[in-house]
Amino acid sequence: MTTHDTLEVPPQKPVSGTADAALQARYGTSGVPFAASLPEWNSTLETLLAHRSVRAFSERPLPDGLLETLIAAAQSAPNSSNLQTWSVVAVRDPERKARISVLAADQAHIRHAPLLLVWLADLARLEAVAARAGVQPEGLHYLETFLVGIIDAALAAQNAVVALESLDLGSVYIGAIRNAPEQIAAELALPPHVLPVFGLCVGYADPTRPAEVKPRLPQSVVLHHERYDAQAQPAGVSLYDEILSEFQARQGQSEAGWTRRSVERWRTRESLHGRDRLRDALAALGFELR
Amino acid sequence: MTTHDTLEVPPQKPVSGTADAALQARYGTSGVPFAASLPEWNSTLETLLAHRSVRAFSERPLPDGLLETLIAAAQSAPNSSNLQTWSVVAVRDPERKARISVLAADQAHIRHAPLLLVWLADLARLEAVAARAGVQPEGLHYLETFLVGIIDAALAAQNAVVALESLDLGSVYIGAIRNAPEQIAAELALPPHVLPVFGLCVGYADPTRPAEVKPRLPQSVVLHHERYDAQAQPAGVSLYDEILSEFQARQGQSEAGWTRRSVERWRTRESLHGRDRLRDALAALGFELR
Repeated sequence: MTTHDTLEVPPQKPVSGTADAALQARYGTSGVPFAASLPEWNSTLETLLAHRSVRAFSERPLPDGLLETLIAAAQSAPNSSNLQTWSVVAVRDPERKARISVLAADQAHIRHAPLLLVWLADLARLEAVAARAGVQPEGLHYLETFLVGIIDAALAAQNAVVALESLDLGSVYIGAIRNAPEQIAAELALPPHVLPVFGLCVGYADPTRPAEVKPRLPQSVVLHHERYDAQAQPAGVSLYDEILSEFQARQGQSEAGWTRRSVERWRTRESLHGRDRLRDALAALGFELR
Repeated sequence: MTTHDTLEVPPQKPVSGTADAALQARYGTSGVPFAASLPEWNSTLETLLAHRSVRAFSERPLPDGLLETLIAAAQSAPNSSNLQTWSVVAVRDPERKARISVLAADQAHIRHAPLLLVWLADLARLEAVAARAGVQPEGLHYLETFLVGIIDAALAAQNAVVALESLDLGSVYIGAIRNAPEQIAAELALPPHVLPVFGLCVGYADPTRPAEVKPRLPQSVVLHHERYDAQAQPAGVSLYDEILSEFQARQGQSEAGWTRRSVERWRTRESLHGRDRLRDALAALGFELR
């Protein structure tokens, strides 16, 4: 008996008319060149294209079973060699969220969201499994293995994001979890060889403070055919600077465009906000990264 | 005018009856404890839960506009500080796919899939943007910045996977792209500070060789509440060893279970299949990883 036989996969409902609007919002322009040649459209594509990061959450509680549904979606993501080198800690305790918030650039939405998921690159589980089998796994100590854990955690987390958005919830990733990896690890009682990769705040969006879809770089800058080609980049980035300035103006932000803000973010070691010491943090958490 | 006002988001159709079947396939057991308390179900959750990696592709050509749709979905994923530190190369040329296949553990599906997407952690774009602004960005050279590129590429790629599965296509990630990063970089003409993170073969599945949903570890092993807790791990892994052995038997594979296969994968440096030299490869590609 294969799943192929037993699953009644529901038909995707074709949704006409919304594809153009979704692409227009995503690229911040009505001139999306491929809009005319799209194959079909469905509610999953609609969900994906409509993504926006939510930082303003309502008081509405999460439904029973939601967390388990999100984790089932996350576990359904592909992973490397079925090693499943990730875990996740679900934090709901207000005091723990408050302490984590302080460690992660004091972001208020960590306190306000009803649920914080901390996604882990978890090499400890397979190490423990190997230990029970009497093996000290040498492969554990390589940079490659660490990357597998990071990638597995990211693929899983993104499936959870898609799942929660399909259920009309919102979320925002918290990269600032990497500002203080050792302290986060202590707070969550992580064993060695486990890195908190990022957080994810989950909840219902506050309807009085809706987020807008943020336009992205033109496809011509991101998508290469056969070989990497940066020829379209200067014109694409100039156009994007204009589009993002308009977006920032609508949001009441200073209109710095993309180039200026992005360059600032990498200008100096100090602009990494403490994450320049990630190597030392990883060593403290037991990663050799050979 | 906000997107919030203009997008007609289509209602998600509640799909009764299929949630149980999807969870049963995903965990390889009918006793999924939270199945009774699920909130709602919809076609996006159905798509996510039904994921299977496809390695046998049909000759059916890809529709016009598919690639651009997948990239629009990928660009809709969240990313770190809107820096968008990823790119993707779409490879369709049969000779190039064949050469890449040889570099990536000689996997036949790279040759047979009509499209290979190679996902890149791309720090070169922002470096070029900064150079045009007269800045040499110091932040580029840190391990943290490299991880941002890896994570951004993974989040984007997974959105593309969800999108293509919603359109009844199949795919499989190719981690073996990291077996020979410098050679892949040369084949794709990548500039310095760009790492090919993984490949993704895309196509319609061969209906005569359907793939089955692979069961995952019990949730009790992966999901922690408030703090990391490995108490449930030994029992959960034992159960999973049985479930995976049954799955392997149905697939006509040797019934090694999970523990034995996974421990083998990390037992020695040699079991990493050349990826133990990833650090050297990264240095050759210009990454300092301070």
